[in-house]
Amino acid sequence: MARVKKKERQQLLLQQVKEKPFLTDEELAQKLGVSVQTIRLDRLELGIPELRGRIRKMAESAQNKVKSIESGDVVGELIDLELGHSGISLLRITDDMVFAKTKIAKGYYMFSQANSLALALIDAPMAVTGVANVKYKVPVHVGEKLIAKAEIVKVRGNKYFVWVKTRNDTQEVFRAKFIMVSWGEE
Amino acid sequence: MARVKKKERQQLLLQQVKEKPFLTDEELAQKLGVSVQTIRLDRLELGIPELRGRIRKMAESAQNKVKSIESGDVVGELIDLELGHSGISLLRITDDMVFAKTKIAKGYYMFSQANSLALALIDAPMAVTGVANVKYKVPVHVGEKLIAKAEIVKVRGNKYFVWVKTRNDTQEVFRAKFIMVSWGEE
Repeated sequence: MARVKKKERQQLLLQQVKEKPFLTDEELAQKLGVSVQTIRLDRLELGIPELRGRIRKMAESAQNKVKSIESGDVVGELIDLELGHSGISLLRITDDMVFAKTKIAKGYYMFSQANSLALALIDAPMAVTGVANVKYKVPVHVGEKLIAKAEIVKVRGNKYFVWVKTRNDTQEVFRAKFIMVSWGEE
Repeated sequence: MARVKKKERQQLLLQQVKEKPFLTDEELAQKLGVSVQTIRLDRLELGIPELRGRIRKMAESAQNKVKSIESGDVVGELIDLELGHSGISLLRITDDMVFAKTKIAKGYYMFSQANSLALALIDAPMAVTGVANVKYKVPVHVGEKLIAKAEIVKVRGNKYFVWVKTRNDTQEVFRAKFIMVSWGEE
């Protein structure tokens, strides 16, 4: 990208951070064709927190909205939640999540992340999983950061049809369709 | 059941323990219409270990057979394994496995038990999960002992179709169909 004036650059930066809140300073610098130092100064001027701070802020706001389960019961970090509609969570794959033998992440971590996120979306006092259809597309390894995006695609009475797609940095690794069942509406 | 002679009773006991190795002395006593004390004495005479011992013995034998993953990576206790065919595992639902809010077991524990059991059946150096279709039939609570039975129903090249059915003491609570993919055959 060609160099742009400061004001335009800061506009672009604001827009980027809004659209893709998980970009690091390095990635932002590359996208805007400027140095990492410039990005840091721009962030300071614009009052944009660093990546870790942005995630924490989103997480706090998201966690306060969860209704059907305790937010601590979400596997991974809940970083965005529009109750009754959609949500995003982040799971870092650590040493203890892989099979001793193959060093590949145990499939049920991806399932747990997606399943608990699907549950968190439900705008009801209580909900459980009814059905799950899932597909593992690519093996996942230690160090990968998995971003799961969930969306309620249909509601029929107390049944919620939720689709979840999980990506690592480069591609989709997992997808799931859930039917969740709520109860306890007064 | 009417009272029977000692020899017949001991035959029945041996048969029961063989068919249903998870029955407690109390349950055996009820089935054979005798006192718990009688069952204990009969077990002693016949050299049948108590329930805990029977499970431990089965578990040791089963765990030595696992090939595609480390036996420690099986969720729950692997208590029977016929490599390439079928297997059984036992999972006790404890306090830390339920949602704080609803006190219902988190669905991914049933998934993990079934999924890792399905993986343990595969007679290959390595295997991963490709697809899973699961159904939650009844909510599960603290204290329940879940027995998962898995069976390979079809093999196509390096794809294994595995069905798992999970019961608590009284009914089926969960079932799953997996397609597992093996590799690393030499």
